[in-house]
Amino acid sequence: MSQPRVYGMSTSGNCYKVRLLLEQLQQAYEWIEIDVRTGLTRQSEFLGRNPNGRVPTLEYEPGKYLAESDAILVYLAEGSAFWPQQRLQRAQALQWMFFEQYSHEPYIAVARFICLMLPAQHERRADLPRLHERGHQALAVMEQHLARERFFVGDSYSIADIALYAYTHAAADGGFELQRFPAVNAWIARVESQPHFVPMPLVN
Amino acid sequence: MSQPRVYGMSTSGNCYKVRLLLEQLQQAYEWIEIDVRTGLTRQSEFLGRNPNGRVPTLEYEPGKYLAESDAILVYLAEGSAFWPQQRLQRAQALQWMFFEQYSHEPYIAVARFICLMLPAQHERRADLPRLHERGHQALAVMEQHLARERFFVGDSYSIADIALYAYTHAAADGGFELQRFPAVNAWIARVESQPHFVPMPLVN
Repeated sequence: MSQPRVYGMSTSGNCYKVRLLLEQLQQAYEWIEIDVRTGLTRQSEFLGRNPNGRVPTLEYEPGKYLAESDAILVYLAEGSAFWPQQRLQRAQALQWMFFEQYSHEPYIAVARFICLMLPAQHERRADLPRLHERGHQALAVMEQHLARERFFVGDSYSIADIALYAYTHAAADGGFELQRFPAVNAWIARVESQPHFVPMPLVN
Repeated sequence: MSQPRVYGMSTSGNCYKVRLLLEQLQQAYEWIEIDVRTGLTRQSEFLGRNPNGRVPTLEYEPGKYLAESDAILVYLAEGSAFWPQQRLQRAQALQWMFFEQYSHEPYIAVARFICLMLPAQHERRADLPRLHERGHQALAVMEQHLARERFFVGDSYSIADIALYAYTHAAADGGFELQRFPAVNAWIARVESQPHFVPMPLVN
């Protein structure tokens, strides 16, 4: 495989997932910074890379692209310690990654976006109570698991942890009350103590 | 593996995915019908199976559960012709399955739910214009791919097709204009001509 190129926005949790895994794999890569707020991902040049117009998008070899953060994680992690060797554990990792994209990110990441990136009086702030209710439900599901287990799959750190860490550790940015979830907080500390961990950059 | 048991609602596209694959695998299974409208999936007995309170949930062996429709598809399909053998194609299948859960289902399935299952004057009908805009965007992404390719991954039918077929073929239920997408319609016909295909039951 040639050196992969990541089109991503550094302060996006979905993009940070890919950076964190590449750093922990100690794999060389090129990062092309894309500020989605400029509308670049909706222009034809970018849509040629990813017709769905989103980052991260991985150029895994020149002119060949793969989209969707969690699919990129699986692609990069296959064959490494970050992707389970057992069929059932692979399915459990995917279960948590689909949970993340369906029941977690649409609330926790979207609330963060509204709070950090939109003006203080923006009409979308009216969505926050519903986003907080649903996001706290997702955190409660994680808390229940992490009260019994050190990581999301088996007893070792995997891309399921990377996928869920990305927006969970920054949930306070969106107004979520992380202090209500002690097992989640202990897990966040475990993730941050993994070899070659790199933090997500703060939003300017 | 013992005979799997599926907790599902027959008229849910997410549950139908699992039934369609099991039928096409010609694998014996038990189906436990769950009407989510009764609130059963939010009660403690069901939450013991899936803390996120959703169907489908697979009991892959007695007392052991796996959630998230697309993770269940991967688990059941591994080792069969419905799950690609190549690493890149597996990642492409997952790319489309994450696309389905993030950019397609939350619009196309939710509009169908509002139109078929809520009273005609329900306040959530106000969401339909936004759901139609986003859902038509997802169908346009599919159309662009299917104008060039017969299936979503490589040149053969896979669980990526099953995942996307479930709600796409029923999109008119939610008020989507499928006739605008001829390549999607041709692909729907290809899916329906696959061996051991079974249709999704109509909503009563």
